[in-house]
Amino acid sequence: MNREMETILLEQGRRAKQAARFLATASTDIKNSALLNMAQSIEARSAEIMAANQLDLERGKQQGLTAALLDRLALNETRIQDMAQGLREIATLPDPVGEMLEMHRRPNGLDIGRIRTPLGVIGIIYESRPNVTADAAGLCLKSGNAIILRGGEEALNSNRIIARIISEAAIGCGIPEGAIQLVDSEDRDAVVFLMKMYDYLDVLIPRGGKGLKKVVLDNATVPVIMTGMGNCHVYIDEYGDYDKALPIVYNAKVQRPSVCNAAETLLVHQAVAEQYLPGIIAKLQEAGVEIRGCERTRQIVPGLVEATVKDWETEYLDLIMAVKVVDSLDEAINHINQYGTGHSEAIISDNYNAVRSFMARVDAAAVYANASTRFTDGNVFGFGAEMGISTQKLHARGPMGLRELTTTKFVIYGDGQVR
Amino acid sequence: MNREMETILLEQGRRAKQAARFLATASTDIKNSALLNMAQSIEARSAEIMAANQLDLERGKQQGLTAALLDRLALNETRIQDMAQGLREIATLPDPVGEMLEMHRRPNGLDIGRIRTPLGVIGIIYESRPNVTADAAGLCLKSGNAIILRGGEEALNSNRIIARIISEAAIGCGIPEGAIQLVDSEDRDAVVFLMKMYDYLDVLIPRGGKGLKKVVLDNATVPVIMTGMGNCHVYIDEYGDYDKALPIVYNAKVQRPSVCNAAETLLVHQAVAEQYLPGIIAKLQEAGVEIRGCERTRQIVPGLVEATVKDWETEYLDLIMAVKVVDSLDEAINHINQYGTGHSEAIISDNYNAVRSFMARVDAAAVYANASTRFTDGNVFGFGAEMGISTQKLHARGPMGLRELTTTKFVIYGDGQVR
Repeated sequence: MNREMETILLEQGRRAKQAARFLATASTDIKNSALLNMAQSIEARSAEIMAANQLDLERGKQQGLTAALLDRLALNETRIQDMAQGLREIATLPDPVGEMLEMHRRPNGLDIGRIRTPLGVIGIIYESRPNVTADAAGLCLKSGNAIILRGGEEALNSNRIIARIISEAAIGCGIPEGAIQLVDSEDRDAVVFLMKMYDYLDVLIPRGGKGLKKVVLDNATVPVIMTGMGNCHVYIDEYGDYDKALPIVYNAKVQRPSVCNAAETLLVHQAVAEQYLPGIIAKLQEAGVEIRGCERTRQIVPGLVEATVKDWETEYLDLIMAVKVVDSLDEAINHINQYGTGHSEAIISDNYNAVRSFMARVDAAAVYANASTRFTDGNVFGFGAEMGISTQKLHARGPMGLRELTTTKFVIYGDGQVR
Repeated sequence: MNREMETILLEQGRRAKQAARFLATASTDIKNSALLNMAQSIEARSAEIMAANQLDLERGKQQGLTAALLDRLALNETRIQDMAQGLREIATLPDPVGEMLEMHRRPNGLDIGRIRTPLGVIGIIYESRPNVTADAAGLCLKSGNAIILRGGEEALNSNRIIARIISEAAIGCGIPEGAIQLVDSEDRDAVVFLMKMYDYLDVLIPRGGKGLKKVVLDNATVPVIMTGMGNCHVYIDEYGDYDKALPIVYNAKVQRPSVCNAAETLLVHQAVAEQYLPGIIAKLQEAGVEIRGCERTRQIVPGLVEATVKDWETEYLDLIMAVKVVDSLDEAINHINQYGTGHSEAIISDNYNAVRSFMARVDAAAVYANASTRFTDGNVFGFGAEMGISTQKLHARGPMGLRELTTTKFVIYGDGQVR
């Protein structure tokens, strides 16, 4: 990376930190008015956004992006209005900052409390969908944090204009200019440099797959919250009800295969495999799902592609599903804990002990009994918009809303106490 | 580091992970009986501990450790009993695992809850005091985590025997052998290797100063909770009461200067500097404190060593205090946010607005009004024993007790719901 970019990034860090000091004590009123103004500006300037998005789409076509990626990249009037609406919804959510979580009086008269405060400066690395630019900026603003956005190269024109519009709108309401900033560069070294700016960033949130995770692990010195890796399983237990299993497996795989809470592998107890698999696999195949089966699955349903260890490890994000017959609940739990990414895991069973054991022993952000993995989502869980779904255990696990973008501090009120 | 050590560490990681699976669902009864047995074994085998500690002390003397360090390293009957007592106290604390933090029913009938679970495998890097070996192992066991301990080289003999005794005692109560393990090596490369074992460790807790922090920042790929760095300040405001200020400053600096919540720099508003500083400095000097003053401080109290930027940055952990006269509350807050490590910060003031502003704008784990910084401590705050004091914002901030050694997972109970 060139020196100039390095200087720009450090300057962005400095401005973000300065803005964060302001935001830490900014009133909910000023933050909400900024959010509403951002929403209005996005709608008023939608033609500019569409024009920039057109440039990205044209370049994407030239570069041979898949139809699915082009679709994720594309903006239209509806999607732009959704972006604005998202910001308005964030304005209606309760402000997490200033909430006193607990306070108690110690025997010596000290009042010790724990109050919610913003994290400071949040960096986010994301791909494709330009609406993330507005969503993430809105969530960070509402929770009193400055944000440095680094979207994918393929959406740079769209992200640039969206960031400019919402930043200008926020500034118009008295928010400092460092509060919402975009890394305006296609240089991948800029991402790596950002990961090391621990003097300025309080946390980095990468949204992406294995490749990004590897770059983060190898380089990040800023504390990280990994999000969005979902190698999810549905396990049909010996006591699983076929009439629940069929729609749940179908929903978890087919309803929206490109998202992280979609299921990738189906595990079936050997006691019901012969009875259940033909119908389930037929229904999935009807929907265009390619099935990759273990040996026993292929004996039950001939003609399937063979599943290998690579399949157990893969988050397809596509209409492909691996199927494995297991001997026991234990084998299912072990398989999930070995190959899963700790995102969303489901058991289909009417047996009390099997459900209790699965819920306790599966190590994941969200564990389901008799429901689709597709529910793991901030909105669906009732927390409002989300910043991503954390698959790590520190700080936040599962859908991250406003609360997860805060930290706490102890406040202690005394009258001269010493130890 | 040699290949053999690498193999040993990876094997320790594997065993820890296996043990963590067991511990995740171990009952409170079995964990408590193990803690009590550990306490009893420590007392019963105190002669072995003393003999091993003697080896460390002799080597420490040969290597020219300071008297203060030798004192931290030394064990005697009282300290060994304190260790055992600490474990018994952990047994009396409520088990954090299994606590349902919230549960609500969604319109579609799904019951969505959030339950507390162990983190998994915790690595801890620490120095000198061998009692940390027992404390940390006890806290991790109670919170359902496996632990890999890496103490300082200077205490290796003591740590080795303590780890062996408590591990054997735990195994005797049905806890798997991988639950409590020590990295039995003086090789510093082993520490760096441990920091990269992200396939096995869920979190790494380094306890130490700037040097260790740098090694961690440069190397760790395991998620980290930094603890124990305390460049703490006391600020005497324009409206600070001398009769509160004097004992608080004295206590914060003198009562136990070697710990992270002791104060290192005194900031005084210029309106009261001439009136307050002579008496405060005289009292500190009486206690043997070396004062390093800014220019204005040295005009008020002649003959002091000159303070430089290096002093503002330094955590002395010793009977040294830097003193600076500031023009305003703003200057004090900016100084603290610039040079502080985000540990414990205090204002002495009887002015409502000054206190409110200081509490809101100072960015630290614990912010005090009219009390000594020395109170930042898990026991003093009423949380029981502590694993360290986090100075980072992610996951845990301030004293870390059992709760901070856990994560949560969402549990979702349905009857066949799909999206």
